[in-house]
Amino acid sequence: MARAYSPAALEIKSLAERVLEGDQAAASRALSLVTDEGEGCGELLRLLFSRRKRSHKIGLCGPPGSGKSTLVSKMTAGLRARGETVGVLAVDPTSPFTGGAFLGDRLRVAEHALDRGVFMRSLASRGMMGGLNPTIFGAIHVLEACGFDRILIETVGTGQDEVEIVHAADTVLCVSAPYQGDEFQAMKAGAMEIADLFVVNKADLADIEKAMASLRDALSLGTQEEKSWKPPVLAVSALRAAGIKELLDGVDAHREHLNRSREGEVPLRSQLRRELSLLLSRRIFRETLSLIRDEHIERLVSGKADPESLAAELTGMKTPARGSRKNGGPRGPRG
Amino acid sequence: MARAYSPAALEIKSLAERVLEGDQAAASRALSLVTDEGEGCGELLRLLFSRRKRSHKIGLCGPPGSGKSTLVSKMTAGLRARGETVGVLAVDPTSPFTGGAFLGDRLRVAEHALDRGVFMRSLASRGMMGGLNPTIFGAIHVLEACGFDRILIETVGTGQDEVEIVHAADTVLCVSAPYQGDEFQAMKAGAMEIADLFVVNKADLADIEKAMASLRDALSLGTQEEKSWKPPVLAVSALRAAGIKELLDGVDAHREHLNRSREGEVPLRSQLRRELSLLLSRRIFRETLSLIRDEHIERLVSGKADPESLAAELTGMKTPARGSRKNGGPRGPRG
Repeated sequence: MARAYSPAALEIKSLAERVLEGDQAAASRALSLVTDEGEGCGELLRLLFSRRKRSHKIGLCGPPGSGKSTLVSKMTAGLRARGETVGVLAVDPTSPFTGGAFLGDRLRVAEHALDRGVFMRSLASRGMMGGLNPTIFGAIHVLEACGFDRILIETVGTGQDEVEIVHAADTVLCVSAPYQGDEFQAMKAGAMEIADLFVVNKADLADIEKAMASLRDALSLGTQEEKSWKPPVLAVSALRAAGIKELLDGVDAHREHLNRSREGEVPLRSQLRRELSLLLSRRIFRETLSLIRDEHIERLVSGKADPESLAAELTGMKTPARGSRKNGGPRGPRG
Repeated sequence: MARAYSPAALEIKSLAERVLEGDQAAASRALSLVTDEGEGCGELLRLLFSRRKRSHKIGLCGPPGSGKSTLVSKMTAGLRARGETVGVLAVDPTSPFTGGAFLGDRLRVAEHALDRGVFMRSLASRGMMGGLNPTIFGAIHVLEACGFDRILIETVGTGQDEVEIVHAADTVLCVSAPYQGDEFQAMKAGAMEIADLFVVNKADLADIEKAMASLRDALSLGTQEEKSWKPPVLAVSALRAAGIKELLDGVDAHREHLNRSREGEVPLRSQLRRELSLLLSRRIFRETLSLIRDEHIERLVSGKADPESLAAELTGMKTPARGSRKNGGPRGPRG
């Protein structure tokens, strides 16, 4: 109660209102608060969540060198030309040691710097213990609350990190380039299962027909089961801005498919379930870490305990055994 | 009590004894049990943990194409020539979707197939929610229990996965190849902070002196603080088996440094702490996932709840509120 009248809470409330009005400076501050997990970020997200726009979230995955960044820039330009506003999140699997900045970022921001309908931001993709950082979902909610029609989520990096993004996007584009031997790469990264559209970029290269044929072959092998949406294979040249219109049409066809069919709510439910799981696991993990004491490590070093048994002991302490053996000591007569 | 006499428990006990006697077929079965988290794997690890050898664990990280696999094979041969036994774990960041096998594995296994002093196995690196799979620590304990003098842990992939491996190894080798622009790559992946030895592989290439000079420059910039161990930069050609002796000498120098100095126990403590954290968080996460019901997702979809508040509510239900609102229902008069 009292909290609602504190200066900090008022500030959060006013920040939320400004984000909901579409104020990009406020969105930028809100994004920092959410990704740094600063004070009041939980309250902020609570205020934004129910009033957010149902933005169309487009995820782009694909190996480094496939030209995702340029493609994002051209897709943004194409969407802007259609009068839509675009938020871009570049998810960067930064080392936890070095911090590190996203190299292409400044360049791309510059390209759309004067356009108030575009907002771009890089995020670190990693949680403390690896895996998708749950603050990414919070960041998406901020952009949804700010009212962007489309949110492009681009992953930087390979393998698992890309695949994780499927849990945050409605429509997933798997981008490859013909000279990368990506037909194999794409399959290895699990892209066959997650892509809603396959995009072969750098269509100026001679090998593109071969690359597209390989992808189509691989796809025809994979689709033994009948699916209501058959992922198309599209050729683009992001660099020359060729094929972008057809790509955006394909993206919209997928969105319409989602809206029309019963599958429309499937991505949303799965996104929310994932977000909730990540938030829960992180919250619990933090509580759990505080249970580990130096004495526990000493017992492991000396071989008096083993990790499995100690983990069982510590979780047992935490969950069902409340009051019966508090602090691990013997139960006294007063118990 | 009764459990100790059950056929399954007896089987686990006999499997543990055979592993501790150095039986590789038993070690192979034990590894599968541990990595599949089959029935009895906790009991097996409990039996093995306190009686395991204190093997020297050598982690290899570095970008794809740096020749880690070939290097592991040549290091194995070099260690065997010195009369030491070698266990190899290739940690493969496999997609959770496709499963996928480690391509180089069969080839390398073949090279040492007839040598009973060598044991090789590929592991999936990923836990259910991303991050280092805690079963990797269990797999290492199996090889330690089997009595291998050295355990080589090779990461396949880039970025975070490699960096994670530092938590499982005593001595970390950061491998790069001169043509990869790895000086930058190495720094980005946080290798500067975690490497005990830098290895420039493919020493047959002309650019090697340049690559080594860049690495040394980067290192001299990084070491403002005095460290008791200065990571050397070594050139090898794994393909031609050149420089392997010097590399193994460098590895041994680091092991002696660990044994001599007070730092000797530091890696062990940090490994055990990490293992315990991962086991704890996974155990608790599994319990927590069972808390998420469809009704929770519906509340999120309808906007009646937001993820942060719901996570707080669910963890609150779990920990202090026992008995007060069991199953979420109102407290009855009998409560």
